[in-house]
Formats: sequence, C-alpha cells, structure tokens
Amino acid sequence: MPNAALVVQADDTELQSDIVAELVKQMRALDTYDTQKDWPDAQVIDPYVLTKERKQAIPIVGDPDEITMARVKAYYNALATLIEKRSGLMAVPVINLTHEGFGRAFIIVGKLIVADKTLRDVHRFGFASLAKLNEEAGKVLEKAQGLIGQFPEVANA
Amino acid sequence: MPNAALVVQADDTELQSDIVAELVKQMRALDTYDTQKDWPDAQVIDPYVLTKERKQAIPIVGDPDEITMARVKAYYNALATLIEKRSGLMAVPVINLTHEGFGRAFIIVGKLIVADKTLRDVHRFGFASLAKLNEEAGKVLEKAQGLIGQFPEVANA
Repeated sequence: MPNAALVVQADDTELQSDIVAELVKQMRALDTYDTQKDWPDAQVIDPYVLTKERKQAIPIVGDPDEITMARVKAYYNALATLIEKRSGLMAVPVINLTHEGFGRAFIIVGKLIVADKTLRDVHRFGFASLAKLNEEAGKVLEKAQGLIGQFPEVANA
Repeated sequence: MPNAALVVQADDTELQSDIVAELVKQMRALDTYDTQKDWPDAQVIDPYVLTKERKQAIPIVGDPDEITMARVKAYYNALATLIEKRSGLMAVPVINLTHEGFGRAFIIVGKLIVADKTLRDVHRFGFASLAKLNEEAGKVLEKAQGLIGQFPEVANA
C-alpha cells in the first residue's frame, strides 16, 4: 500500500540507480540506533526529495540541523565511493561548511579535484525528485570520470 | 633594546622573507581592534615560533582556541597569496578542522591540489624557529610551483 507521507514509493524505478543504492547504504550506516532498521529503501531515501511543497515548509533562512548536515555528507560520501569504484582510485570527499550552512564540497582523487560544488542554504538541501537526484549525481560522476581520464597523471599523484 | 619575552628580535634577518612579510600582513588584518598597531613585525610574528620551552608549556592534549585557529588560517592564506603572486593563478586555501584540532589543509589552484597537509594537535601549532618557518614555507611554495609547472592545464582548469 502506498505511504501517503512519502514522496518516494517502493516501486519507483529510480530506486535502482547506483547512487541511490549507495546513499541508502550510507544512511543505514549512520542509523546507529537501528531506528530505520525496518524501513524500506524508499523510506530511507525519501528525505533527499524536497518537493516544492516540502521546500515551502522550510524557512528561507535557517541553520542546518545535524540530520541535514549528515545527509549532505552522505551524498558526497556516496559520490566519492562511486567514483572510487569506477576509477579504481581513492576518492576523498572534503566538505567545508559554516554552521550557517554555507560552504563548499570537493571530491579529490590524487591531486585532482574531480568535483567542486558551492553549497548554499544547506538547511534546504534536497532534490526536486528522485529522478533529479539521479540526473545530478550522474552529471557529477560523468564529469569526474572525464577529468580522471583527461588527467590520469594528476589523479594518480 | 631586545625584548626578553620575545623569541624573535627586530634584527632577525629571517624577518625579511616573503612568507613572514605576508604573514605579518595577514595578522595585522585580523587585528580589527588595533591592539597590535604599535607592535613591530618581530612581535606580530613571534607567536608562530614555538620553541621547546614554549611547547612544553602547552598541554599535549587540548582544543585549539580561536587565536590559534586564526594563526593556522593566516599561515595557509599567506602561502596561497604567495602561490598566487608567483604563478599569476588564483590559489584558494581550504582548511578542514574539527574543534579538537585535527584535520587537513589544502591549497587549490584550478583543479590542482598544490599543497595538502594533515593537521594534528593544532593547539600546538608553530615552528621551532623563524628559520624553520621560512624553510617549511619555502618547501611548500617550491612544491606548489613545481606542480603548477608540471600540470599547467589542470592548474588553469
């Protein structure tokens, strides 16, 4: 039975992507008290989707809470893990955030910056849909892979 | 007259280096209340020197205070400024520190990491002497310049 409180439903084909699988793994690893133990993947990934309605419910100005920060970190960890799997090279996420939720996220391979994103309004971090998350993550992964291919010596430095 | 409380004296030739000049500039910029306005350069740079005696006076385990953190940031800002001056390319320092004083400092030029340093025990940040500061900064600058020369395409990316 569909859960009305969730945006992502269990039969969503977008759940099949590598990034969602990795994100779910990261989120479950963070759940040290097993509160999400019996949740399906759709429910674990659901907070990453910030629909227009959900976005409107969040104040425009605000400090990100710990849960939101953890979500941002899990996203870049997941991207780094996938870059690592695909390139065979160690990828390190570096996230620089002020407590007001501004900053920058990098993913580093060797001496090469393969992803670089300015972060703003992190308390409203999220994607319009799961499809959008897959699309954006796909772009980051593709660009990273392209840079590693273009500058293998730097990526291996 | 020499100031006995200071390690660095006004006639120290090590004061003439680019890095010291830049560090003094950074430290004076941070001094928004003009408390150090009448201090000579030797006195402004003095806290960067952590002699054996000074180091022994600091507990082995401790959290870095704001002043120490500012000093670390000024050091990497100064290095980045010099890299920028010498290469003509924008250099960005990125410092990731936990409040326990562990972390990592990077300097980024384009998509190239030209400096990368693991930080530990930041509450005890400092150099055995001003000569040592000049020597270490010199190594960082030389390495950065070498990497930019080796990978100009990445540095300009």
